[in-house]
Amino acid sequence: MGMRLVGLREAGGNTLVGKLAEDRASVTPICGLEEFWADPHHWIALPPAGPSLATTDVELAPPVLPDARVICIGLNYLAHVAEGAYAAHGIPPYPTLFARWPASLTVDGAEIPIPPDEDGLDWEGEVVAYVGAALVDATPEEALGAVVGYSIFNDVTARRAQKLTSQWTLGKNADRSGPLGPLVPAPEVEDLRRGLAIRTRVNGEVVQEGCTDQMVYTVGDTLALISRTLTLRSGDLLATGTPSGVGYSRTPPWLMQPGDVVEVEVERLGTLRNTVVARPDRAAQ
Amino acid sequence: MGMRLVGLREAGGNTLVGKLAEDRASVTPICGLEEFWADPHHWIALPPAGPSLATTDVELAPPVLPDARVICIGLNYLAHVAEGAYAAHGIPPYPTLFARWPASLTVDGAEIPIPPDEDGLDWEGEVVAYVGAALVDATPEEALGAVVGYSIFNDVTARRAQKLTSQWTLGKNADRSGPLGPLVPAPEVEDLRRGLAIRTRVNGEVVQEGCTDQMVYTVGDTLALISRTLTLRSGDLLATGTPSGVGYSRTPPWLMQPGDVVEVEVERLGTLRNTVVARPDRAAQ
Repeated sequence: MGMRLVGLREAGGNTLVGKLAEDRASVTPICGLEEFWADPHHWIALPPAGPSLATTDVELAPPVLPDARVICIGLNYLAHVAEGAYAAHGIPPYPTLFARWPASLTVDGAEIPIPPDEDGLDWEGEVVAYVGAALVDATPEEALGAVVGYSIFNDVTARRAQKLTSQWTLGKNADRSGPLGPLVPAPEVEDLRRGLAIRTRVNGEVVQEGCTDQMVYTVGDTLALISRTLTLRSGDLLATGTPSGVGYSRTPPWLMQPGDVVEVEVERLGTLRNTVVARPDRAAQ
Repeated sequence: MGMRLVGLREAGGNTLVGKLAEDRASVTPICGLEEFWADPHHWIALPPAGPSLATTDVELAPPVLPDARVICIGLNYLAHVAEGAYAAHGIPPYPTLFARWPASLTVDGAEIPIPPDEDGLDWEGEVVAYVGAALVDATPEEALGAVVGYSIFNDVTARRAQKLTSQWTLGKNADRSGPLGPLVPAPEVEDLRRGLAIRTRVNGEVVQEGCTDQMVYTVGDTLALISRTLTLRSGDLLATGTPSGVGYSRTPPWLMQPGDVVEVEVERLGTLRNTVVARPDRAAQ
């Protein structure tokens, strides 16, 4: 395993960025979250120094700025377009972008509560790219060059809320519905276009199997497009969409229930594992 | 004029909350942004004390937490539903919710740049409600009771980006596209259902004229619905939708050009005034 960066929440609510040891048993804090995103290339290149903490003694948090934008692509794998409610519309001519607020993010190992009006939760295994520099009217090459790392992401969806109206926002921002794995520096991943296998399992059964070379819209193209409307900043995230095999479009539909364990495994990035829980736990963080 | 609260950006990037004097010439800082939203009722009730600063000497900022959710209702006035691209679908059975990230917000007087691929910008005058307490599975009465204040908002829209795909996110988050007026405490406003007149003017010409009692979905009902999927927190915002009269649905369409001045005036809340500028200024803040 190469370098893995995580967020660490301090008692006062402050978040640090730290480096996980190879065995994941300890983590070495390197700097504050704001400091990290002010110059992520510098901090990623620096070897970890200073005292390390037992991972069991720290509260992990997404290494994401509170004002970051989590920009998600909705329909980016052909087989997923074909299985869903938008199949009749064909391939969208532009990436279908929707929003998560960082408040919906959580970490590997976290419990994900089912909101009260949902029959369960759906899985969407995918890869997130972290922007590491400001981008205004960027070319696809500049945009891809600004990506400093990648993480596994599970875009867990409250389908009923998502489909209430034309806009998906509510169903994509349920409490703790966005578990995010550690950040893996871009040089260890190279380019998603070379093809990383993505696999989602529910209670051990493989439910999604795809490869990042099947994406319709690449990271560089999508960030370049976005940067022509809003200035991307260091710390913003792009979730690149999920392959086919989600639960709601199955016959019969399959949604995760309390106690179900969902894992997303991505080549070079590791495995992200979370448990779905009943709703009384929902408000607790 | 009653009490008006604004954000003040300090040199180090920190944001304070302050109270505007009656003549708007000075502002009295009262506390930090985090402190304010930890107990907004307390800070609003407290008379301003301590030294005041000339408004011309401070940089105003939205009094919005970096991790707040800006939740917007898309189709909430019948005449606006009827004039737009969704007219054939009729009244949506639930509030159509879309997301802004706080990074898109700006203040009264700010210049709003036109992104390079847009033919101009459209106006959407409306009212924002500020949530002042955590809400989980709230009733409409609890939700309305948690609202601590209101502001004028202009949900300035990059129509081309908004209509690229089914999801409106990109076109609703252009740089500095969301000017927000000062916060007016809820008791001064009472309830939007009693009817506040909203008027939008472009270069002095009235383009929108509506009243908040025409809303299909009330603030209480909408926040209650949202709170059944995501836990609302103190500092979150609900933009309540725009009346009819937007530019893109006119014959011929009318979009704002560089130099155009847009004003949104809401009874009891005041007037919000912004200028549209050409794109070379876009990245500057």
